[in-house]
Amino acid sequence: MSERAGRAPGKRGPAYPRAVDALISELAHLPGIGRRSAERLAFHLLRSSTDEAMGLARAIEDVKKSVRHCGVCWNLADSDVCDVCADDSRDRATVLVVEQPKDLIALEQTGMFRGVYHVLMGRLSPLDGVGPGELTLAPLFERVDDPAKNVAGVRVAEVILGLNPTVEGDGTALYLGEQLAGRVGVRVTRLARGLPTGSQLEYANKAVLADAIECRQRV
Amino acid sequence: MSERAGRAPGKRGPAYPRAVDALISELAHLPGIGRRSAERLAFHLLRSSTDEAMGLARAIEDVKKSVRHCGVCWNLADSDVCDVCADDSRDRATVLVVEQPKDLIALEQTGMFRGVYHVLMGRLSPLDGVGPGELTLAPLFERVDDPAKNVAGVRVAEVILGLNPTVEGDGTALYLGEQLAGRVGVRVTRLARGLPTGSQLEYANKAVLADAIECRQRV
Repeated sequence: MSERAGRAPGKRGPAYPRAVDALISELAHLPGIGRRSAERLAFHLLRSSTDEAMGLARAIEDVKKSVRHCGVCWNLADSDVCDVCADDSRDRATVLVVEQPKDLIALEQTGMFRGVYHVLMGRLSPLDGVGPGELTLAPLFERVDDPAKNVAGVRVAEVILGLNPTVEGDGTALYLGEQLAGRVGVRVTRLARGLPTGSQLEYANKAVLADAIECRQRV
Repeated sequence: MSERAGRAPGKRGPAYPRAVDALISELAHLPGIGRRSAERLAFHLLRSSTDEAMGLARAIEDVKKSVRHCGVCWNLADSDVCDVCADDSRDRATVLVVEQPKDLIALEQTGMFRGVYHVLMGRLSPLDGVGPGELTLAPLFERVDDPAKNVAGVRVAEVILGLNPTVEGDGTALYLGEQLAGRVGVRVTRLARGLPTGSQLEYANKAVLADAIECRQRV
């Protein structure tokens, strides 16, 4: 084994081909993907067929080219108006406000809601520097105030607050409730709080039980 | 809130734009990435700048276009022969056999080895269906037998077995040792076993201590 004098250990950088290094550092930029996982993913892509790897590359390009936000409700869309807003069987007078497009998807999957949505693109979080200006609050207030700004010019009759039942979600709902209270002709409601169906009372936490008692429903 | 009679809950599929669904399922094909993580990554790519997302897409394309295996040692390369094999300051008579390109990188980072490598692309693992035919054993034996098949036509004088110190790595080393034993003029060695520098005796496991005793070195 020939050691070469004068060559300090660790002096050489990694010797992957340039393209592999580039891919690893691109992958390591993704959230929750560290350097090690990025290497593992890069080696997977190296091993997999060209079709498979190119499928991923093309999917990323497609998304950046074709996906935008709905001009009315800020849901993800592949045209100017999203599928929900474009569907004229929906009740455009009822607007359910959610934080993220994925909340909208979760609600859509129940098939129980036939109104339309408004996606805030986040929740108020002063500690993270997210104030009212960072969310799509202004377009929501415009939709409520001016029927021309809502889908098909329908006047908004009810705003349902569908934020996450967390401290920040509740804070955002409180703020929205205050801002919307002054608007004439608009009912503001929120999604029900209580025991999750399928759960057991003995394992429910205090906040859930308190909600269940306070918001008890007539049978 | 208008519910529509006759619409069963859960009947609607997810309502992401087609391109977003496609990206999520491409990402979910990656190892260790489930559906939830794939959604999280897709939303990250949607939020990030076009340059950033396209950077990843282009890095994948680049890797599939430009990266291949070295014709001599099977290391990753961006031309017919890898950087290590192409470097004429290296000792081509000493071949260190490793399982994967990443093992080669780890060894290169020490800067202590000035020979060349041979990457097996795995280890023997009968339970996973990996036999001698799945590895680059034939090209290794050809390099040893015929100087013309080695870098710059140099005759191989020493083969160092650098497989992982695991059951399967050891099994592969045993097989290689047997296969190489009959070849005239080739010395077969393996990487040293013993206590890892920086560790503490009291925490070393029995196998490590047994190796340390058995392979004790003269000082």
